[in-house]
Amino acid sequence: MAKVLTKREDNYAQWYNDLVIKADLAENSPVRGCMIIKPYGYAIWEKIQAELDRMLKATGHSNAYFPLFIPKSFFSREAEHVKEFAKECAIVTHYRLKKDPDGKGLIVDENAKLEEELIIRPTSETIIWHTFKNWIQSYRDLPLLINQWANVVRWEMRTRLFLRTSEFLWQEGHTAHATREEAIEETEKIVNLYTDFIENYMGIPVIKGLKSENEKFAGAVDTYAIETLMQDGKALQAGTSHFLGQNFARAFDVKFTDKNGKQHLVWATSWGVSSRLVGALVMAHSDDNGLILPPNLAPIQVVIVPIYKGNDELEKISGVAEQIKENLTKNGISVKYDDRDTQKPGWKFAEYELKGVPVRIAVGPRDIANGTVEIARRDILTKEVIRQENITDHIVNLLKDIQAGIFIKARKFRDENTHKVDTYEDFKRILREKGGFILAHWDGTSETEKKISKETKATIRCIPLDGKQEKGKCIYTGKPSNKRVVFAIAY
Amino acid sequence: MAKVLTKREDNYAQWYNDLVIKADLAENSPVRGCMIIKPYGYAIWEKIQAELDRMLKATGHSNAYFPLFIPKSFFSREAEHVKEFAKECAIVTHYRLKKDPDGKGLIVDENAKLEEELIIRPTSETIIWHTFKNWIQSYRDLPLLINQWANVVRWEMRTRLFLRTSEFLWQEGHTAHATREEAIEETEKIVNLYTDFIENYMGIPVIKGLKSENEKFAGAVDTYAIETLMQDGKALQAGTSHFLGQNFARAFDVKFTDKNGKQHLVWATSWGVSSRLVGALVMAHSDDNGLILPPNLAPIQVVIVPIYKGNDELEKISGVAEQIKENLTKNGISVKYDDRDTQKPGWKFAEYELKGVPVRIAVGPRDIANGTVEIARRDILTKEVIRQENITDHIVNLLKDIQAGIFIKARKFRDENTHKVDTYEDFKRILREKGGFILAHWDGTSETEKKISKETKATIRCIPLDGKQEKGKCIYTGKPSNKRVVFAIAY
Repeated sequence: MAKVLTKREDNYAQWYNDLVIKADLAENSPVRGCMIIKPYGYAIWEKIQAELDRMLKATGHSNAYFPLFIPKSFFSREAEHVKEFAKECAIVTHYRLKKDPDGKGLIVDENAKLEEELIIRPTSETIIWHTFKNWIQSYRDLPLLINQWANVVRWEMRTRLFLRTSEFLWQEGHTAHATREEAIEETEKIVNLYTDFIENYMGIPVIKGLKSENEKFAGAVDTYAIETLMQDGKALQAGTSHFLGQNFARAFDVKFTDKNGKQHLVWATSWGVSSRLVGALVMAHSDDNGLILPPNLAPIQVVIVPIYKGNDELEKISGVAEQIKENLTKNGISVKYDDRDTQKPGWKFAEYELKGVPVRIAVGPRDIANGTVEIARRDILTKEVIRQENITDHIVNLLKDIQAGIFIKARKFRDENTHKVDTYEDFKRILREKGGFILAHWDGTSETEKKISKETKATIRCIPLDGKQEKGKCIYTGKPSNKRVVFAIAY
Repeated sequence: MAKVLTKREDNYAQWYNDLVIKADLAENSPVRGCMIIKPYGYAIWEKIQAELDRMLKATGHSNAYFPLFIPKSFFSREAEHVKEFAKECAIVTHYRLKKDPDGKGLIVDENAKLEEELIIRPTSETIIWHTFKNWIQSYRDLPLLINQWANVVRWEMRTRLFLRTSEFLWQEGHTAHATREEAIEETEKIVNLYTDFIENYMGIPVIKGLKSENEKFAGAVDTYAIETLMQDGKALQAGTSHFLGQNFARAFDVKFTDKNGKQHLVWATSWGVSSRLVGALVMAHSDDNGLILPPNLAPIQVVIVPIYKGNDELEKISGVAEQIKENLTKNGISVKYDDRDTQKPGWKFAEYELKGVPVRIAVGPRDIANGTVEIARRDILTKEVIRQENITDHIVNLLKDIQAGIFIKARKFRDENTHKVDTYEDFKRILREKGGFILAHWDGTSETEKKISKETKATIRCIPLDGKQEKGKCIYTGKPSNKRVVFAIAY
């Protein structure tokens, strides 16, 4: 199989698109801005879902399902919220088609016009808080910890597979609390849960922080974000967790009675990660040969390829391969034995390299004679020959090594591409020459942020939670600052 | 807790609605015809999903995801298909709202009108077969076995929670095959898979059969249906599997090249079950006290309730309860220990009865003294006292007994409410007096079927696959027939 991908250094965006298509992750659909997630890409999303769902349930959250449609009037109830989402939403206005009297096609039946238009949910705060009003009366009903796995639609004008599509898949958490402190605690708990997932399953190091006023969620008091760095030096926001204060409780009149019989507005959070994570996974680790998937999220962790001439050899090899597969499967490892006779071993090697299967085992006639197998590691492209009797332990440890190695490599990249700068000249130069995360002092005003952003395209990704206090001067205005913030050009 | 449900014999429809609401399964939403699936109801759906997904993957199917939107023009490509779905679909016509210049609300921005309207998928054959055209070139690409978990919208005028809602959740399988025989085999394989699931997990006996021309899916050559009987004597279609012939391949020009280089149209199937199954589960088994859930799908299989005065007693009881919980959990049983002090034991007993938890264990001071526990069985409302040391094995077996017992009871009901009739008079009388499934001869014409349906509201549910050949006369026309078909009034 010839090299099928554009090289990263030639055109990173094209490399990404090639890879998503050629590795059978997703493709564009005939509906503008919507993608088709193909089985291999969906299998990665299912792995992401399964782990996150387990983590969310372990921390007391329950899944529920709310309608796809939101009445137009709900939208206007929270002023900031509507400003953000009204500009890019899919609107249902009618409920019937009829035959075109002038032709053989179909037209909208004007007699089937909705009294109130329905918006396809871009996010569900409004319909959920309308519902919470009925679910919450007393302090006994709190906290209410709800999560939803759903599709949402935001009418994006420039779309890219997984990273930005008009329809995408996500989970959205919506919680209600009796106190401000408890809601903030929940917001932070979720940031840490996402961090755990993104670092330990996706193998991508993160910076946690607060969004500035310009960048926070429409309707939030505070937005916590998780920022990751891609190989082209651009930042990607991997997840957000919002402390909503009492904004939605006020908009939908959701109150609870405390132990003393007094009424209070409820405190809220919301948070989500989406199918965008698949895009982040691809962009963070992969190389010019194809995907590199961390074992914890790889749909196939180990592939076994037989190398043979004729059925006699295949039979002997299959005996060994099936035994290896059985032993690995018993250890919870997902294994594919690819004994198709329609493709040559070389083709299969390239195919599984492209698809990022972490470990490839090849078994040939010499291995049968010697009691060995050849093991190839996708992430660093090394090969070794080992004895068959040691294979299960070896693979179990190898998968752990790969998982750890992928994270360490990404962290090294992130650290090497994080720069402290103290002048606006350096800021612009680093941005132009290297990209990456830039740690710089900022005077805390939206005005300055907007100017820097307009001039350089870099935005404040977050005000890092673990950034240390440090006296300094804003790179743009020279005004005093006591903490560096993280700038980058972002996806 | 007082009895909160209408009695089945007083008003079955009201009983069902009461139960769905009071057991916290679902509620109506502010969006007409759409429901909110509450955490307990969604947990049942998740159990259904998990089992079906496992069964579908074990038979070689892969999940994928296709867009929510279908371009209007796709709809018209298959003539029968469009006739069925154009009358009841949600249509997206615009993609932006703007401020109402005359007020403070929002209006649709007429400058943001779509060139071609988008239909919210009522089912995905059209967009999937449009995609399959690119995925299928050669016989090597077949069979293609795809499944999708998704929400779909059909603009229903009369809706009922779970049973018929404008938006519902489902899985839809779409497969492509090289031969007619293989596609029919797939269609039947799925009917059997659904039957296995509905009988062995949901505990509901089914009749498998073919739909008549009037009742088959729009665009299918043959529709296989799975029919179940509810406690009010009405039938409920629990799942369908369609042999689509080459209709969609023709509509979307999907061909493959065989081994000899010749081109052929591809053969297709599609099949689905939906969140309607939750409604079937409720209606098939439950009683005037609340839900009765089969253990295989119960979110909580065992609840433990402490009966105590004061903290000393509670502490001793909790020691025993936690140990029981741990041992049961190790055996894969889902257990809740409800030691809330905000509710009395009697309230909890009624609550878990209402919610259909299969087994309740009560532990009080006398049990601590005697080394016993009290076990209550939800399905037949019996209680027994057993020794603590035998409890794990006892519960494991008890759950199996309950699962089997629920099915046997439902099958007995189904058999007692299945009537052979040979005259139209008897047909109408049985329908009026007893309902249920009616096995009768029919002359095979749509005309007769429509007349019977118009006069009695009963429809042909299916032509049973395992019905034996038997000479007879159509109950309506007296014309010859060689097999009885199943009539019923249906949900």
